[in-house]
Amino acid sequence: MDEFKVIEIKRSVFENNDKEADRIRARLKSEKTFLLNLMSSPGAGKTTTLKSTIARLKDDLKIGVMEADIDSDVDAKAISDTGVRSIQLHTGGMCHLDAGMTEQGLDEFGTQDLDLVVLENVGNLVCPAEFDTGSSKNAMILSVPEGDDKPLKYPLMFTISDVVLINKIDTKSVFDFDDDAVVERIHRLNPNAEIFFISAKTGEGVDEWCAWLKAQVQEWNK
Amino acid sequence: MDEFKVIEIKRSVFENNDKEADRIRARLKSEKTFLLNLMSSPGAGKTTTLKSTIARLKDDLKIGVMEADIDSDVDAKAISDTGVRSIQLHTGGMCHLDAGMTEQGLDEFGTQDLDLVVLENVGNLVCPAEFDTGSSKNAMILSVPEGDDKPLKYPLMFTISDVVLINKIDTKSVFDFDDDAVVERIHRLNPNAEIFFISAKTGEGVDEWCAWLKAQVQEWNK
Repeated sequence: MDEFKVIEIKRSVFENNDKEADRIRARLKSEKTFLLNLMSSPGAGKTTTLKSTIARLKDDLKIGVMEADIDSDVDAKAISDTGVRSIQLHTGGMCHLDAGMTEQGLDEFGTQDLDLVVLENVGNLVCPAEFDTGSSKNAMILSVPEGDDKPLKYPLMFTISDVVLINKIDTKSVFDFDDDAVVERIHRLNPNAEIFFISAKTGEGVDEWCAWLKAQVQEWNK
Repeated sequence: MDEFKVIEIKRSVFENNDKEADRIRARLKSEKTFLLNLMSSPGAGKTTTLKSTIARLKDDLKIGVMEADIDSDVDAKAISDTGVRSIQLHTGGMCHLDAGMTEQGLDEFGTQDLDLVVLENVGNLVCPAEFDTGSSKNAMILSVPEGDDKPLKYPLMFTISDVVLINKIDTKSVFDFDDDAVVERIHRLNPNAEIFFISAKTGEGVDEWCAWLKAQVQEWNK
């Protein structure tokens, strides 16, 4: 269907990113729109997880998706096929979105009628963790093939994420991955992090994650 | 054994990274030391690939490894266990190494007696592609679980890599991954890229990759 715009995002003009992020959050709160900032490594399954999340929540919530990428529009195409509104943001080589860039996307997209906007950030465990986008909550996906040592190597990402989805649990038979170790490592950095073990492909665990997300959106928008 | 130093790398002072990179390359050429810049997403298998490469080449070449990470020293520990010299570089939050940062590592490490130095760059498909480190060759690893669409999303990384290792081919049974499509996408960006399909875990394809690397090192150092 390919019914989405492609926006070339400009470098942000705001010097104080945190202040700008707080301003965006306040605006979204008043408009009753929940913004989820979704982060992960390349290929951890952001788009597949989103598709299976949308399938479960789209009858209950008005959902829109902003896909950020250096290049290409394959993700916006995939999301557009689910029937929810999507937009593709091109970052012009930037490895993350900051608050100002996120706001350009929100303004172009038009989010007033939406309950839940998902910002699929650039695939990267470093830079996106350093910039508050103005999101209501930060989510990250760690996939089983990446290994259970990632909280040790990318601590900031795990520290700033409100929820961590451990994805691709259907592939555990071919990888060494220690569930207890990864939970312990995440909670040592971030004791309040919610953790869900899921397979976006088979659907295992996705209902639990969606129930949590729906409750967060309803709490925010009430 | 843990016989390695941990170095806190400082932000580079050089304004012209390309010029600095060329200077490093000339110095390494004259010292008959080949520098391989190894890049990938987090968890694509850089360290495991290095370990299986070292096992095959360490009797023929004097090898050293510089491990760059935001934090932690788990990779330098793993390499140290192979018996080759290693050093851990901490980037202070930076998502890549540039030429000046690489040179700080080389100077601390002492590379004059080495035939091959591998710089394991920060796990990231965006920023490391933007900075010439002064390496003799750039290598990147794309792992099967990440998906065959990554050349579309991170084109610069595939454009600047002299060789692409497609790793974790032992896990193909649980992933959809189109070999022909990924080769076509890489060669469209970079017609001269060498591509090897490997499993660092089982050893499949690693001999071919090592033969190529050894030939490159011998050509550089002759």
